[in-house]
Amino acid sequence: MEIFKQRILAEGKNLGQGILKVDSFINHQVDPMLMDACGAELARRFAHVGATKILTAEISGIAPALMAAKHLGLPVVYARKSKPVTMPDQVYLTVAPSHTKGRLVELIVSPEYLAGGEKILIIDDFLASGATIIGLVRLAQTAGATIVGVGTLIEKMFEGGRGRLAYLGIPIESLACIGSMDDGQILFCR
Amino acid sequence: MEIFKQRILAEGKNLGQGILKVDSFINHQVDPMLMDACGAELARRFAHVGATKILTAEISGIAPALMAAKHLGLPVVYARKSKPVTMPDQVYLTVAPSHTKGRLVELIVSPEYLAGGEKILIIDDFLASGATIIGLVRLAQTAGATIVGVGTLIEKMFEGGRGRLAYLGIPIESLACIGSMDDGQILFCR
Repeated sequence: MEIFKQRILAEGKNLGQGILKVDSFINHQVDPMLMDACGAELARRFAHVGATKILTAEISGIAPALMAAKHLGLPVVYARKSKPVTMPDQVYLTVAPSHTKGRLVELIVSPEYLAGGEKILIIDDFLASGATIIGLVRLAQTAGATIVGVGTLIEKMFEGGRGRLAYLGIPIESLACIGSMDDGQILFCR
Repeated sequence: MEIFKQRILAEGKNLGQGILKVDSFINHQVDPMLMDACGAELARRFAHVGATKILTAEISGIAPALMAAKHLGLPVVYARKSKPVTMPDQVYLTVAPSHTKGRLVELIVSPEYLAGGEKILIIDDFLASGATIIGLVRLAQTAGATIVGVGTLIEKMFEGGRGRLAYLGIPIESLACIGSMDDGQILFCR
């Protein structure tokens, strides 16, 4: 998605050690018009998979997932990282290592909103090592749901997440694929 | 906003002690089409205030703020509750008591995205005691920005937040105002 890649080149900052700062338009300040366009493109790419619900993880997955969900006309569920008082005692919970936090984080979904028979499209901001997304896959599968696709805004190809998700045999899409961040650069895959 | 109030009556759950569970369409599962409509209505009500940026708090403020921002054509900044590695060492930070968490939470904004001279419209999911919103007001004022409005999806009138915000002398709007949740009911103000 050319307009999105250009924005990454213009405003993204390579902080080293594989960390891409996109806080000016995705992760702290958000450009809603760009997110809407990204959501429309993700919706276009996954229009054929028959999803019944979108699943993402708080916090930074919410904006792209919400916009993709709007364009697909589907509800979106965001996995919580702590259990709010409104959630029932019995929940689906898994843990996933967080690259940016350097520790395990919990991913929690209420059984009220993730049921057997659902066809789940996972949307997140980044596909890096794939750890968060594999956590979401486990949650959905535990609920008896089927994963029909994984879409992200930015893929860091060099962290190997796509390979780790290959066992699912489902479409994996990213709007900008970064092949290398060596030497302070941001080089796209194609 | 009638369609929104009807949804609250149909799916909202009064858990007692003033806690309204709206996890099926706002706070865990989100209805993006409804959020889009709410964002459009908030944008309409604040079209005249000359806002240059929307400020909200993660997590549950993101969806309504993002949609309102899209309809107003403005960027949105969400205050973080923990400082990510991508944020500079020097930040704006305040603490606010969290009603649902029963403890103080931090609200953190990077000076990169909150500057003097900005006209800030605050959007959040709930206006209850006003504590979170007053925290956001402090952050914006510390940055030298001006607050031009406060808009929320649901106001719990009986928790008094509107009164605590009156000193600001700015428009305060909510799409559904709940006057009482006594005896398991959900009674709107008007």
